Amino acid sequence: MRDLSRDLGHLSLNGATVRERWDLGQIIEGCVRHGIPGIAPWRDQLQALGVAEGARRIRDAGLSVSGYCRGGMFPAVDEAGLRAAIADNLRAIDEAAAIGAQCLVILGGGMSPGSKDLPLARRQARDGLAAILPHARAAGVPLAIEPLHPMYAADRCCISTLKQANDFCEELNPRGERGLGVAIDVYHLFWDPELEAEVERAGAAGRILAFHVCDWLVPTRDMLLDRGMMGDGVIDIPHIRGLVEATGYDGLIEVEIFSRDDWWKRDPEEVLRIVAERYRTVV
Amino acid sequence: MRDLSRDLGHLSLNGATVRERWDLGQIIEGCVRHGIPGIAPWRDQLQALGVAEGARRIRDAGLSVSGYCRGGMFPAVDEAGLRAAIADNLRAIDEAAAIGAQCLVILGGGMSPGSKDLPLARRQARDGLAAILPHARAAGVPLAIEPLHPMYAADRCCISTLKQANDFCEELNPRGERGLGVAIDVYHLFWDPELEAEVERAGAAGRILAFHVCDWLVPTRDMLLDRGMMGDGVIDIPHIRGLVEATGYDGLIEVEIFSRDDWWKRDPEEVLRIVAERYRTVV
Repeated sequence: MRDLSRDLGHLSLNGATVRERWDLGQIIEGCVRHGIPGIAPWRDQLQALGVAEGARRIRDAGLSVSGYCRGGMFPAVDEAGLRAAIADNLRAIDEAAAIGAQCLVILGGGMSPGSKDLPLARRQARDGLAAILPHARAAGVPLAIEPLHPMYAADRCCISTLKQANDFCEELNPRGERGLGVAIDVYHLFWDPELEAEVERAGAAGRILAFHVCDWLVPTRDMLLDRGMMGDGVIDIPHIRGLVEATGYDGLIEVEIFSRDDWWKRDPEEVLRIVAERYRTVV
Repeated sequence: MRDLSRDLGHLSLNGATVRERWDLGQIIEGCVRHGIPGIAPWRDQLQALGVAEGARRIRDAGLSVSGYCRGGMFPAVDEAGLRAAIADNLRAIDEAAAIGAQCLVILGGGMSPGSKDLPLARRQARDGLAAILPHARAAGVPLAIEPLHPMYAADRCCISTLKQANDFCEELNPRGERGLGVAIDVYHLFWDPELEAEVERAGAAGRILAFHVCDWLVPTRDMLLDRGMMGDGVIDIPHIRGLVEATGYDGLIEVEIFSRDDWWKRDPEEVLRIVAERYRTVV
């Protein structure tokens, strides 16, 4: 297991952590100022800055891009909706390629409005992934399927466990080619009794493309926007990092905190300082 | 699959659904008035009425008791805490026996305050169950392990999937004796891609002791107290009921709705009328 206490060499900042107060240009400058070598931008922020301009600034700042947020969300009410989702994902792949992202993060999407058919949503997610995978391969942008916590299964991500994500990868990528893998986020997966086995399975296939950290607060006051800073919650983050790194994962550790009433309200300078401190001490 | 449209013969009302406005005596009378043949009381309400008096009223009303809420919650900070939890569960078993409950609902409990060790909580839950199982068998009260949604894993129930509950049953009850089984609640389990296989597994072992329904609202505004009335959410309840009944389950269907800002605010007469209507039409 890597020693994180000495420097910030493997740290990446997901833009969502400070996006309420900073645009992407400010986030890039903040990372540089705080010695954070990685970044994970969101599409709306990159588009607001301009893809070419954002790519240039990220490159000039010397930042690695641990992931681009985000693609997927395929389930749609009709064929036209699915085609639109696929077209939008192809653009996301091109944007990810432009900024040199190590992966495009993929959410499964929830059930279409009015639907109660979760298996259908899962088939739609699979079909959407299959449709964009050739373009992702051609562009050199691996797709990272991120299972989200089961509390988002209905309306956000029908892929709720790492086992499901692994199964998707094997179905869509039976010969284990590059280009499709998983993103492991401790917030979404810490509860899963199968986590250890499924991390090993993902690692053995060389498909862990990203590792995200934050913390689960008790109580959690909002299902979407009350994530905690590492160390403030109940997740045994070093244990899960140990599982991931035991498979040979040597990539960035991305901090992604949605926190409407706490961290989003603070001065981003303070947030980045604490992110760096916690990275060195409790991750 | 049973036809529920003709009468209320398999309906049970979990007291939590109307407990903000009615005590247990009123709930018993309400069930009788609405032709609901089953009830699932909570401990505090039964104790407030008096166990013997509550048992007498339930018997006189001719109600079946689909379950008693609830036992478990074993993880504790120290040995004394664990002993106290076990002693409390033994009393719960006696109370359940006094009212003729078909099972005592068991929650695993969350992690002890300050702990980040979910596997430890699971071992404590297993050990607690093992400690009370002989008394439950002697009292003729089966223990129904109820997996709760993974969003409660940290602080309420470390048993998050039906697979875990099945595994617990097999570990604690290797020869398949009576006395230990599972409670299946659509709210907690609808998201699980393994649900079909695990319902079959539980049914094949004759261990489905209870079946609970309500609905998952989109959006869900509170993790604990925003459950929906059947039909108002996104759960395909008939599909899950079909899985359960295909195993031969012929027991009661218990309606359990925690809804601080909606159903708990309504007149319980209206709530029971709508529970009965939805039972006949969308369950």
